[in-house]
Amino acid sequence: MNTPGFSFRITARRARARAGVLATPHGDILTPAFMPVGTQGTVKAMTTGELEAPPLDARIILGNTYHLYLRPGLEVIAAHGGLHRFAGWSRAILTDSGGYQVFSLATLNKIDRDGVTFRSHIDGSEHRLTPERSMEIQGVLGSDIAMAFDQCPPGECGPGDHEEAMERTTRWAERCLAARRPAGQALFGIVQGGPDAARRRAHMAEIVGLGDFDGYALGGFSVGEPLTVMYELLDEIASELPEERPRYLMGVGTPADLIHAARAGIDLFDCVMPTRHARNGQLFTSQGTVVISHARHRSDTSPLDPECPCETCRTVSRAYLRHLFTAREILYSRLATLHNLTFYARTMAGLRAELNGIEARP
Amino acid sequence: MNTPGFSFRITARRARARAGVLATPHGDILTPAFMPVGTQGTVKAMTTGELEAPPLDARIILGNTYHLYLRPGLEVIAAHGGLHRFAGWSRAILTDSGGYQVFSLATLNKIDRDGVTFRSHIDGSEHRLTPERSMEIQGVLGSDIAMAFDQCPPGECGPGDHEEAMERTTRWAERCLAARRPAGQALFGIVQGGPDAARRRAHMAEIVGLGDFDGYALGGFSVGEPLTVMYELLDEIASELPEERPRYLMGVGTPADLIHAARAGIDLFDCVMPTRHARNGQLFTSQGTVVISHARHRSDTSPLDPECPCETCRTVSRAYLRHLFTAREILYSRLATLHNLTFYARTMAGLRAELNGIEARP
Repeated sequence: MNTPGFSFRITARRARARAGVLATPHGDILTPAFMPVGTQGTVKAMTTGELEAPPLDARIILGNTYHLYLRPGLEVIAAHGGLHRFAGWSRAILTDSGGYQVFSLATLNKIDRDGVTFRSHIDGSEHRLTPERSMEIQGVLGSDIAMAFDQCPPGECGPGDHEEAMERTTRWAERCLAARRPAGQALFGIVQGGPDAARRRAHMAEIVGLGDFDGYALGGFSVGEPLTVMYELLDEIASELPEERPRYLMGVGTPADLIHAARAGIDLFDCVMPTRHARNGQLFTSQGTVVISHARHRSDTSPLDPECPCETCRTVSRAYLRHLFTAREILYSRLATLHNLTFYARTMAGLRAELNGIEARP
Repeated sequence: MNTPGFSFRITARRARARAGVLATPHGDILTPAFMPVGTQGTVKAMTTGELEAPPLDARIILGNTYHLYLRPGLEVIAAHGGLHRFAGWSRAILTDSGGYQVFSLATLNKIDRDGVTFRSHIDGSEHRLTPERSMEIQGVLGSDIAMAFDQCPPGECGPGDHEEAMERTTRWAERCLAARRPAGQALFGIVQGGPDAARRRAHMAEIVGLGDFDGYALGGFSVGEPLTVMYELLDEIASELPEERPRYLMGVGTPADLIHAARAGIDLFDCVMPTRHARNGQLFTSQGTVVISHARHRSDTSPLDPECPCETCRTVSRAYLRHLFTAREILYSRLATLHNLTFYARTMAGLRAELNGIEARP
């Protein structure tokens, strides 16, 4: 990696999969790693202390540029010297570029060569994002890893739309590289191209050809394509991303998706699934997904997952969780989120142990 | 106190105020003490671990018989062997009798000599509570301290209504005393009588005359009467409750109310105010009440209360709390509730230290 304060060391390989250590100014991240999503400056329902405590032990969380730019606004975060101090989080942060939310959440007014004009989903106010402005905002947020400003086209669009988004994303990536960044902030490039392997390879060549990114992300996955399409495409292209740089699959997915993608060579993941599913009553366990509202859990005194060491599974029953969910108690969201994030963390820890263990054998 | 496993020892007195230790089968409670309210089997937004951790260090919480009886229902809690294990709480629990909620939340169908028929506020189903049924339910909940089933008349009612409620409450108190209780469950009687001191004294004589309660509560305060009326009445009658038994002022109030009542001789308190106010954006601090939504806190990087040792005040700023409140994030309710309950706990710890003649810890 080019940026001072960062390094990526691969500690073990198995076929296309690898385990490694991504060093940042805010600590080491053991990869493959899952990054909990802290949309509005908080991983929903969780304190920073809980995120840091083993067995969850999150080493990096994600912050959303679009959300934080609109609310609380940059001057508030600047007054705190950045997102780390604002949110009370002393480990690493990755910020997205704002592009994804502009294209999915906001009302778009205009996309042009230079950038995007949009209206806030909160109050309808008009704003403009360009590659330079996105980098400036991410600079104020002070994340450890910034993402290049890209265009992520919707899943159902045609080849022409993909070509246009690829071309624009390349041009914008170049401008992000040229923009000023604070010391100690790495920059990752994003590969688009939709579900076609040839188009993905073409765009990968363009983005990698720009030459100076600290890591590479695959965008535009899990946007409605069949699971087999995603898996086959990842099997083909993930391992073709530069070997010596961290590889990040954006916005994916289920625990099974993460395992498949890590075996294809991916190092970093983020997704709202563990936190959102938790709040909606879907809990990941070693015995499969539990829908906590189900009547069968009504008087069940057993823990949610007997194999899980999280506080939820150590202290309360399925019946209690179901009661809290039914009564719409805040404590439900807390206990459920803690468990689901712990399940994801343990899934990644299991992958790392498997990769490092096999490599360590004589 | 009569019930095996319980004792109340007064360790210090100052005028009518006293400090003491109320021993229960689930640990000692240092008095004066505030009991956080765990309406539906959870102190809203809090884990049991947080409630137990210093400086909050709650020794006893309150459970609501009416709510828990309706949801999750007794068979669910019975399957766990009681409310302690259901909620994962190993310290003491006091349950109310269900009377207050029946008269305030439910749709009343009939009050008669024997009990109350009402409709659930959740699904409209019809239920009946009598003194014997309330004791039976509290027995299944397995609280350390049960409350006698009483009638709490509304604040604006006339002398006749008070007389009727007093008479009924006395008759019901006698039946609660005669009802079976599990081993290790104490029973407190409740004094009604409205805002008139003579009527309060008359009812106190009746309830105390029944002879066998482990403690005594004052009900029907903070139901709309002026603050001066409440304060003067407490000054007159609180210290006339039996000296050697714990005295509990039900459902009151602000930190100033608690200090006034403790000086009048009260030992135990409960109120939804710290938890409810927290969620509504009103935070108690050493500098007065903070309305966190106020624009003046927008970029304020200082802690909510520089004198408070709680996790909220140690880790985040007023601006961050305001942001979470504005964005309706769950973490807001957590951090705010933790702080307000800590403020109440520190208020009580300060009172105890003052009475016991030792320096209060920060």
